Amino acid sequence: LTDLAHRPCVTLLTDFATSDGYVGAMKGVIASRCPSVPIHDITHGIAPGDVRAGAFALATAASYFPSGTVHVAVVDPGVGTARRGLLVEAAGAFFVGPDNGLLSLAAAGVRSIYELDRPAYQGDRISPTFHGRDVFAAVAGHLAAGTRAADAGTPVESMVELELPVPERCALTARGEVVHVDSFGNLITNLRIEDLPVPVATLVVEVGDRLVGTIVETYGDVAVAEPAALVGSAGYLEIAVRDGRAEAVIKAGLGSDVVVRARDPHT
Amino acid sequence: LTDLAHRPCVTLLTDFATSDGYVGAMKGVIASRCPSVPIHDITHGIAPGDVRAGAFALATAASYFPSGTVHVAVVDPGVGTARRGLLVEAAGAFFVGPDNGLLSLAAAGVRSIYELDRPAYQGDRISPTFHGRDVFAAVAGHLAAGTRAADAGTPVESMVELELPVPERCALTARGEVVHVDSFGNLITNLRIEDLPVPVATLVVEVGDRLVGTIVETYGDVAVAEPAALVGSAGYLEIAVRDGRAEAVIKAGLGSDVVVRARDPHT
Amino acid sequence: LTDLAHRPCVTLLTDFATSDGYVGAMKGVIASRCPSVPIHDITHGIAPGDVRAGAFALATAASYFPSGTVHVAVVDPGVGTARRGLLVEAAGAFFVGPDNGLLSLAAAGVRSIYELDRPAYQGDRISPTFHGRDVFAAVAGHLAAGTRAADAGTPVESMVELELPVPERCALTARGEVVHVDSFGNLITNLRIEDLPVPVATLVVEVGDRLVGTIVETYGDVAVAEPAALVGSAGYLEIAVRDGRAEAVIKAGLGSDVVVRARDPHT
Repeated sequence: LTDLAHRPCVTLLTDFATSDGYVGAMKGVIASRCPSVPIHDITHGIAPGDVRAGAFALATAASYFPSGTVHVAVVDPGVGTARRGLLVEAAGAFFVGPDNGLLSLAAAGVRSIYELDRPAYQGDRISPTFHGRDVFAAVAGHLAAGTRAADAGTPVESMVELELPVPERCALTARGEVVHVDSFGNLITNLRIEDLPVPVATLVVEVGDRLVGTIVETYGDVAVAEPAALVGSAGYLEIAVRDGRAEAVIKAGLGSDVVVRARDPHT
Repeated sequence: LTDLAHRPCVTLLTDFATSDGYVGAMKGVIASRCPSVPIHDITHGIAPGDVRAGAFALATAASYFPSGTVHVAVVDPGVGTARRGLLVEAAGAFFVGPDNGLLSLAAAGVRSIYELDRPAYQGDRISPTFHGRDVFAAVAGHLAAGTRAADAGTPVESMVELELPVPERCALTARGEVVHVDSFGNLITNLRIEDLPVPVATLVVEVGDRLVGTIVETYGDVAVAEPAALVGSAGYLEIAVRDGRAEAVIKAGLGSDVVVRARDPHT
Repeated sequence: LTDLAHRPCVTLLTDFATSDGYVGAMKGVIASRCPSVPIHDITHGIAPGDVRAGAFALATAASYFPSGTVHVAVVDPGVGTARRGLLVEAAGAFFVGPDNGLLSLAAAGVRSIYELDRPAYQGDRISPTFHGRDVFAAVAGHLAAGTRAADAGTPVESMVELELPVPERCALTARGEVVHVDSFGNLITNLRIEDLPVPVATLVVEVGDRLVGTIVETYGDVAVAEPAALVGSAGYLEIAVRDGRAEAVIKAGLGSDVVVRARDPHT
């Protein structure tokens, strides 16, 4: 990551929506410092201040980008307060954003963490309400143009980790909850395949008091409008409804209980 | 299209919305295989599973891109089922996506169709629920980087064509319907200018039991808040309301009858 | 700006939303004329026909882009009427769009204004309802590829300026109004810091009949769910609610009265 040729692109993830010029201002700041670098939007549709949803979306996307990518993420309800701004140098990427857990799911293999305290790499004037533009985009633009990570800030020991509920696992059951509802209405849980009792083929999934059924391979394995439990693209157990919205059909949402247990052999 | 210099950019069209990291993951997959290629969003706002709306949007945009562009389109309610994944080599562009009609309006001048069955050009692991990332984006990234279309799959004879209602045409009337409502509330019909009786200046347009009036050149030819029938930017007859939403003013929508007939010369 | 190397990128701002192929068509037209130029979305979420919101968003973002950037902006309820299409050469950027005030807030340091009347730099066929594609994107693509501004049109003397209400200022008070509500629900006023009586520390802000309080530095200076008056990132006084939507909490919106006055020293 010290080789300049390894800064192939910059990504942006924010909760700024897209009806104002705020995202555009960030792109301008990056392009001013490194005009040729491709800037890829991950999403600007995170619900305002929803750090957890932002962390999930960033983790969903970041690992697919080429090594050396600079990811800028801004879901920052504490902007202008004492929370730190960070640059995280991870195994295959740089992450720039606030120290509130937003970066922690995506930043795998952390090597160094820097607090962004060097005015030379930030905007001439720092708006206390828009660090996305004046701090994070500015640092990302400099990084893209070849600045070394160590020049942009002072090393720190750790960052805030996202707090997710921890699943409970017993011999025959695992108990978790819905931690994210995606734009298709799919219910993403905090249960990973390795959290489940084995063998998976013998298990059934319940959401609240609703029996969803066995864990299938794909939506196509159930009838239209029927719910399906499956392991989603990011490795978490999720509940979907074929050609429908699980959130509405199952009447579940963030925090709903999810239980995975051995199927009663008599039914 | 066999010249590598003819792969100038990649476009993306999906129904993934933009509140998750799914679109970002696709961009990462493409950028990992071809970091320098510009990736242009066409839209990610297609209603979930609405293959017809996706096909219209793709057809609206694709022909304007430079020759050799790789268009990736994913509106794919059948993901993970037996529906095929396709690469279509057309007159001026490549199209990558599911074989469900989504590509058929846009792919003019089809030369070859390939079923995407070569693991070497796809992701290391294929999620049964996310071919957009693991199949379509991966193939597009390889194509952008210079892979020949014939290397990515096995030739097949045909693809699924989008089923659109066929307009009825008589000597003095043409009868069609609304097949798309755009984001301005404009009612797009399945009637092309060549479907209309001539001379056009003598015609009037009715939607349901509402007389819209003659076919005008532009919105400015009618008063504010009045409906106007005109030939839209993609060549289809459409009904708009100046500075308003035709969908609401005319109380019409998908499937509404549209009749074009000679004006009664006595009125 | 006559040096070709000074055309580093193109930006797009429209009210087209993102559920159709219209924005994609514009990108295609630009890429066809200049395949390698980065195209950055500022926003496509301006409310349909809201020229003022578009002008604010463009002004929020444009100045951050590198010198020579070509900004294309299309919020154009008068498309197809006699309103002119313009190319504005300003101090550090080019602006392309309709002559309805949309460009006037952002175009600082205007050097030349050209009416777009040269078919050679426009589309082969000009749809009367889609100048965004056939006129503005086409001209922008040519500019990006090196066309001189003076070749694209005929010089004109002036352009339509956006009409904003003018704040009233007395010795001890300033009176303005809300002129924009951003996507966070923040109320942006037409009062700039230089419009306010001094010293700022002695002032209080009222919106309608609601006392907001003193002018603070950042959201973090007030309690959660409390309103805060502060000078926003673009230099205008704005009213926000910490971790909430000021629009809903204060029950104010476009046109609401905003008064800034000296605090009563006895309270």
